[in-house]
Amino acid sequence: MVTTTRDRILEEAAKLFTEKGYEATSVQDLAQALGLSKAALYHHFGSKEEILYEISLLALKGLVAAGEKALEVADPKAALLRFMEAHARYFEENRPFFVAMLQGLQSLSPEHREATVRLRDRHEENLRAILRRGVEQGVFREVDVALAGRAVLSMLNWMIRWFRPDGPMRAEEVARAYHDLILRGLERGGA
Amino acid sequence: MVTTTRDRILEEAAKLFTEKGYEATSVQDLAQALGLSKAALYHHFGSKEEILYEISLLALKGLVAAGEKALEVADPKAALLRFMEAHARYFEENRPFFVAMLQGLQSLSPEHREATVRLRDRHEENLRAILRRGVEQGVFREVDVALAGRAVLSMLNWMIRWFRPDGPMRAEEVARAYHDLILRGLERGGA
Repeated sequence: MVTTTRDRILEEAAKLFTEKGYEATSVQDLAQALGLSKAALYHHFGSKEEILYEISLLALKGLVAAGEKALEVADPKAALLRFMEAHARYFEENRPFFVAMLQGLQSLSPEHREATVRLRDRHEENLRAILRRGVEQGVFREVDVALAGRAVLSMLNWMIRWFRPDGPMRAEEVARAYHDLILRGLERGGA
Repeated sequence: MVTTTRDRILEEAAKLFTEKGYEATSVQDLAQALGLSKAALYHHFGSKEEILYEISLLALKGLVAAGEKALEVADPKAALLRFMEAHARYFEENRPFFVAMLQGLQSLSPEHREATVRLRDRHEENLRAILRRGVEQGVFREVDVALAGRAVLSMLNWMIRWFRPDGPMRAEEVARAYHDLILRGLERGGA
């Protein structure tokens, strides 16, 4: 695979934004980390915000594509598992892009934010479709699908705050444990 | 109630950190919003980081105290509900402090971060104590208490990302819906 300068810029930027925060990272910091001049950097991207936008788009398109495969699974419980695993795996495999995207939303321009929110909403809508199907088939209780979807995404997304790549569990294993918890609930004996 | 200059600084700072982000807010921005000189501000706090630390301590001490009341409730299901409601209510009532604290952790100095992490761990340990009691009494399934606690806090904390004070539900109502979901699970018929 050929790595272009553009790719290198995005990768380094995602890493710096994740480690230091987007606001605390200057174009100068980025140029220095890459061994490029600021002029060379501006040849590829018009602004720091454009770099964040490109990172966010790539991260979200990949996430949506990963989650969408779960829609093909007929059984709602298995589809939910597949969706949660895919989301967690995507996070672990694309960590700097994923974290920079999730943390950077409020730093995007209104137009760029709108475009990324559309992708995020599509991912959430795919999850709701799985939950809705489960309710319709009588596999899931008659829960508020929007709220249940939010609960699932909250558990998965909060992993950016505590998950350690060198910890004892892979992200996908955490997703499986969460799937068991959200499916069966805490209560012994169930509903 | 007498509002001191110190209180005013903390309140305005929490608001600005929440809206613009800690890194993007300068001491100059803060002084301007308060109608104070930078010198007057530095009379009260040695640095911007010290302000963030004070905000984080206040937010976490209040959160721990709110959650601790749930430990007095004997029934594990009711105690979990009380804990989740208290966390959500505290978030809604102290929103700028709570959000600035949660978002600011990585901007604190190592010593300050350690002190705040200790408080955060205490809050999490209180939740685990409730879950552990439920497992021991056979009210909850034999779940991984650390993981289940993390799931609960993830759902509650992710609210900083989507909850709107002018939305249709109070934060406490969201917590009650999450409590029902995590207790009973998605699956019809249960475990």
